[in-house]
Amino acid sequence: MRSALRELPGCGTPEAPKPGRRPRSLSREEYREGILLGDRTVLARAVTLIESTREADREVAEQIVEDCLPHCKDSIRVGITGVPGAGKSSLIETLGGFLIAEKKEKVAVLAIDPSSQISGGNILGDKTRMPTLAASEMAFIRPSPSRGMAGGVAQRTREAMLLCEAAGYRNILVETIGVGQSETAVHEMVDFFLLITLAGAGDELQGIKRGVMELADLVAVNKADGANVAAAERARAEAQNALHFFPASGSEWTPRAMTCSALTGAGIRELWECVHEYAAMTRGNGWFAASRREQQRRWMHEMIDQSLRQRFLAHPAVRGRMEALECDVVEGRTTSFRAARTLLAAYCDPERP
Amino acid sequence: MRSALRELPGCGTPEAPKPGRRPRSLSREEYREGILLGDRTVLARAVTLIESTREADREVAEQIVEDCLPHCKDSIRVGITGVPGAGKSSLIETLGGFLIAEKKEKVAVLAIDPSSQISGGNILGDKTRMPTLAASEMAFIRPSPSRGMAGGVAQRTREAMLLCEAAGYRNILVETIGVGQSETAVHEMVDFFLLITLAGAGDELQGIKRGVMELADLVAVNKADGANVAAAERARAEAQNALHFFPASGSEWTPRAMTCSALTGAGIRELWECVHEYAAMTRGNGWFAASRREQQRRWMHEMIDQSLRQRFLAHPAVRGRMEALECDVVEGRTTSFRAARTLLAAYCDPERP
Repeated sequence: MRSALRELPGCGTPEAPKPGRRPRSLSREEYREGILLGDRTVLARAVTLIESTREADREVAEQIVEDCLPHCKDSIRVGITGVPGAGKSSLIETLGGFLIAEKKEKVAVLAIDPSSQISGGNILGDKTRMPTLAASEMAFIRPSPSRGMAGGVAQRTREAMLLCEAAGYRNILVETIGVGQSETAVHEMVDFFLLITLAGAGDELQGIKRGVMELADLVAVNKADGANVAAAERARAEAQNALHFFPASGSEWTPRAMTCSALTGAGIRELWECVHEYAAMTRGNGWFAASRREQQRRWMHEMIDQSLRQRFLAHPAVRGRMEALECDVVEGRTTSFRAARTLLAAYCDPERP
Repeated sequence: MRSALRELPGCGTPEAPKPGRRPRSLSREEYREGILLGDRTVLARAVTLIESTREADREVAEQIVEDCLPHCKDSIRVGITGVPGAGKSSLIETLGGFLIAEKKEKVAVLAIDPSSQISGGNILGDKTRMPTLAASEMAFIRPSPSRGMAGGVAQRTREAMLLCEAAGYRNILVETIGVGQSETAVHEMVDFFLLITLAGAGDELQGIKRGVMELADLVAVNKADGANVAAAERARAEAQNALHFFPASGSEWTPRAMTCSALTGAGIRELWECVHEYAAMTRGNGWFAASRREQQRRWMHEMIDQSLRQRFLAHPAVRGRMEALECDVVEGRTTSFRAARTLLAAYCDPERP
């Protein structure tokens, strides 16, 4: 089955999709089996189903995810964000290479870009960004789902993550693409949050959103190579100092700052050891499991909220009045409270004037 | 009218409520007039209507707020939060006294405590916390609304704030009470966000939630008096350094750190000058007005979301299954996505199995 499936489109494998050929549908059982065997092509096709906006596809996708749930292997989920120009892609490339070559462990790289407007399958882009990793049999790289709302994109990435875990990917790297839009969503789906920054004149973090710094379990100052080593070390000390000033999270972990170089590989091993130290500590004190359970619970409520909101906004009685009322609120002609109540009344009883 | 009304309960004036006497209802016009004349008792009664859970009261309250909207005077809204023990109440007391005595300006102090379970009218508590301010004719102090959900509490404080502005309160101080629960809500309703902290051994912020530090426009290290001056100055320098490391907000304001003493009054004038410098700068670059407009818009959507959610959770078909499904999700027996869809289906069509 494997060789046949490798020809199919929609995958994150090195083979380019062949748009002219329509693949045979797989059964639910074939999906389950393929994923559990670690078949990247089946995995990629299942993720495509997850990202589909067709109701029938969603239904199958949910069944596949549920079938795979009991088989999700032990994993570490690492969220990665960075200031623009910090070299996030290169760092993921180097880190992924290290995990494959030295640890002999598989790596999944999932990206989230809620602002993404490009159509699905931006594989070429990811191949260019991470050429070595994209060429490895041990890596599964998936660009951001491009359809749906911001929250919907995150939700699809969460489901994809579960399938990767069932397929034996021990290391899940979830990368933020859009600047300042997806950090919180990513933080909500990972065990460990890594912020990549650069040496600079105190303006290191000007490109990221407020609050992101405080989410970091580790701040890595990248490009600590060549003439830049001393400056990177200074930036590291500054970051360490700032982190020290933050309140502790419930994990009892004290966030750290390190230097590294995606170019030379310096510090990459230490970076990963830090991730594992965190995992060991939080597994020991129960935070790791508790946090995942709480994330699961919140995802459920978030999906519900989103859906309720979508239905509300799509209602004709709401659609027809929203813009004018929003305008009244912003211009101070009415209060937010009154406008909200008017819209809610229209939603419940469209006949009401 | 004024003297008669001062006898009425539910007010923030020095007079204690007289529970035995039931006040005469005021007309919508009487409310409007009393508030615009700056009558504290009428203002307090209007705020009580805002906080009421009775539908009829809410209706009147909304009319009053709308009547007052065109008369809201120019104001500065300052959110105040602090680590436990930082002396937030004393600082508000001293700051309020300074504004009344030196600036001859009225001060409203509104508190938000989403976790508050005490019944309404905790005036005695606020009198004890801020005895001088509570005794002043120029101050209006209102404890946190105690009814309703967290979001509902914030929404009522927003409406109360508008009434205070119509009553000529130029300075609105919105105080967070619950630790780590209301900072974001308060930040969303003010122009300027003040974080009060203390000198300590690097553990200054252990009591506050992650992310709050980055909301601050000013960090004030309180208790910079007596033997504590040098330690406070060191804490200030540390805070300044940490703030420097944060990304800028859209306001273009660079957050500052200062020392002050609620006890001696040292630094209070400088603190307030900083607030005004911020206001002047952000009024100049358009941020001040733009931020208020955006807040208004967000309040509307927040109210809608809350209401949709409340209705959903109150639905019998949802109530009956929520707990079991949440449990399944947390224990990994089903996915959050499937559970959310099941509940949403039950909500839309309770007949569906």
